[in-house]
Amino acid sequence: MNAEIIAIGSELLTPFKQDTNSLFLTSRLNDMGVEVKFKSVVGDDRQNLTGVARTALSRAEIIIFMGGLGPTEDDVTRECVAEALGVPIRRDSDIVAELYARFAQRRVKMPENNARQADVIDGAEVMPNPKGSAPGQWIEGLHLGEHRVIILLPGPPFELEHMFDTEVLPRLRKIVPKAKIATMVLKCALLSESMADERAAPIYGKYTDVETTVLAGAGQVEFHLRAVAETLEEAQERVEQLAAELEDEFQDAVFSTGGESLEQIVGYYLQMRSATIAVAESCTGGLLAQRLTSISGSSRYFLGGAVVYSNDMKTLFCDVPPLMIAEHGAVSKQVAMALAEGIRKRCRATIGVGITGVAGPTGGTEEKPVGLVYVALASQPRTEVVERKFPPGDRKRIRMWAAQQALDMIRKKLI
Amino acid sequence: MNAEIIAIGSELLTPFKQDTNSLFLTSRLNDMGVEVKFKSVVGDDRQNLTGVARTALSRAEIIIFMGGLGPTEDDVTRECVAEALGVPIRRDSDIVAELYARFAQRRVKMPENNARQADVIDGAEVMPNPKGSAPGQWIEGLHLGEHRVIILLPGPPFELEHMFDTEVLPRLRKIVPKAKIATMVLKCALLSESMADERAAPIYGKYTDVETTVLAGAGQVEFHLRAVAETLEEAQERVEQLAAELEDEFQDAVFSTGGESLEQIVGYYLQMRSATIAVAESCTGGLLAQRLTSISGSSRYFLGGAVVYSNDMKTLFCDVPPLMIAEHGAVSKQVAMALAEGIRKRCRATIGVGITGVAGPTGGTEEKPVGLVYVALASQPRTEVVERKFPPGDRKRIRMWAAQQALDMIRKKLI
Repeated sequence: MNAEIIAIGSELLTPFKQDTNSLFLTSRLNDMGVEVKFKSVVGDDRQNLTGVARTALSRAEIIIFMGGLGPTEDDVTRECVAEALGVPIRRDSDIVAELYARFAQRRVKMPENNARQADVIDGAEVMPNPKGSAPGQWIEGLHLGEHRVIILLPGPPFELEHMFDTEVLPRLRKIVPKAKIATMVLKCALLSESMADERAAPIYGKYTDVETTVLAGAGQVEFHLRAVAETLEEAQERVEQLAAELEDEFQDAVFSTGGESLEQIVGYYLQMRSATIAVAESCTGGLLAQRLTSISGSSRYFLGGAVVYSNDMKTLFCDVPPLMIAEHGAVSKQVAMALAEGIRKRCRATIGVGITGVAGPTGGTEEKPVGLVYVALASQPRTEVVERKFPPGDRKRIRMWAAQQALDMIRKKLI
Repeated sequence: MNAEIIAIGSELLTPFKQDTNSLFLTSRLNDMGVEVKFKSVVGDDRQNLTGVARTALSRAEIIIFMGGLGPTEDDVTRECVAEALGVPIRRDSDIVAELYARFAQRRVKMPENNARQADVIDGAEVMPNPKGSAPGQWIEGLHLGEHRVIILLPGPPFELEHMFDTEVLPRLRKIVPKAKIATMVLKCALLSESMADERAAPIYGKYTDVETTVLAGAGQVEFHLRAVAETLEEAQERVEQLAAELEDEFQDAVFSTGGESLEQIVGYYLQMRSATIAVAESCTGGLLAQRLTSISGSSRYFLGGAVVYSNDMKTLFCDVPPLMIAEHGAVSKQVAMALAEGIRKRCRATIGVGITGVAGPTGGTEEKPVGLVYVALASQPRTEVVERKFPPGDRKRIRMWAAQQALDMIRKKLI
């Protein structure tokens, strides 16, 4: 079956706000084998919304409306869907009573308008909303000779997600043919999207029955694999076959096949090896420490870090000799190694990491351009250092790549 | 005038990827006084896309198609728009020659398919794409008696943005009536959305001619104001009046009216006062340092930071007495103050900041629950400390709020 997702709200047509519920819904629908064919966004406007509802009824089997179920004059989803369906609306006295009771409990008089939330489209089942006040609605039946499922959900994500899982999923399961779907996510570190896709396309291109989506960003490429087959085993087999071929191609660039982030994987390895880590960061300014400590339980392996922006601090916290900085510059192989070794010794960690570079946009020179980064890893038996030249121009991106480079060096050290 | 934005690409109908170009386009269109009335997402499917194009032609004056202009069989935007318009397509020999030349330069034979990028809808002006290979198209004229502007843009953001600014904007300016629009953004720190809106709604509610959008997240509430009037002066006056009333209400919680982030504002103040800063972080794990150093030029005021997760490190880097930790616990007012004072002294900074808390989800106790955070600020003449209890459950959110609390304390100290 196929679906259309419609987000309602004028704020979703501003430059500041974007519908994200549709990602959650798409994930849930895909898991059942339902494909999303259209997504629409429309404002709180009767004419426009009714038109969008009519269009959706003509082209999708499952139609999900999100938002516009509140008590204000702007909340017109109920009326517009009823009009598009050509059916009346009735006010449900049970819901009205509940609304009054809820306000009475808070010792507040209910504003007249709130009764609008009790308006039910003729033929709809009401879906309760324990997380908020606007109930949802479920309508199933023939419209102009076609079988249609129409679902009205509240807009706030925690209300929508709860209602979808508790009310909508059980109803959908009864009518959607049971699908045999397998999925897998391969994540690779430090590859560019174009390079990764050039190498991967000839491989996944052979698997016409596995859908492959390539996502890239901030020093990471992800392959999302998805197969639909006659049996679950068959679907799983196809996904696993393709995954194995991709792992052969990308070797140890693949850091996770179970959805984990690079910092999670690094955390697993550190714990497994009973190793500890300490980091000294210049250009990344705390980003590496922040990523390592974003994992709950990281206190078991993360000892500490120093953000050493000025030269004095490099000496103060990591014992980098001032003469070394004077001779080679703060952005140099030597200083990166001294940072890694210094912080390792100070914190008595198994692994010490040092990062120094030019994040820009200013501060670059011909010899040391913006984007130049040194990452060093100190451990037994010796210290390694890597020089990277990232494209200049985007401070945030250079910092992300540098932290990613460090995390991947730690991972490879621990494999 | 009004507009519809259509994003094309099956990957935009997966749970992993979302159109973001429409936010850029909406911002640019709104600046001209053009309102976006509909947004649509559709896959690389001839029938569905042609249908979407027909619907858009029936309801919007300016229609922007994004994506599907590449060389592969999946790139069907040109054909589908032509079909919806009921006009033929021709292959432009100049573009074909350019494509051949580009491939020849790289000494690569051009794949046959690539010539598809030279297909031009009858009546269209071709818009060059110096950032990529797929040119854009501009069509203006009557369709079924209505004036329509149809714009085809490439999907990759840097290609789309460049083409919009260099090719589309100058053309639109000739046909869109000159609008008198003023905008302003007020940002407030450390307010909850519901509390902020409760106080703000009675104020902005009076200004029916100023559109107010309230955005909230991670310890910050933003009021986006926008007025359209007969003259630019009038629009500006209305926006400024409302902004002044909101500033009266929220007083010094308002940290910026020019779009700046809290870390930018803190950076301005530190530079203005010729002050320097050093930070010692436990539960935020480097997030505060990372935010402070995300600003280009922060090396002028940011001296250094210590991420002191373990008790030993608190002593090693910030001279926190081990007995103090034993007596009061690592998460305590005393330790937060000692961290702030210790890092200030070590780095010889004007301001020292110390953060300690329980980010969770594990590690909380009855006395020291998840969400409890102490932030201390050491400077002349004395050290201040604040205790906050953030809602437990979301590690990322607690860390964000704690860093936000610290930044806002620095700001208030420097005002």
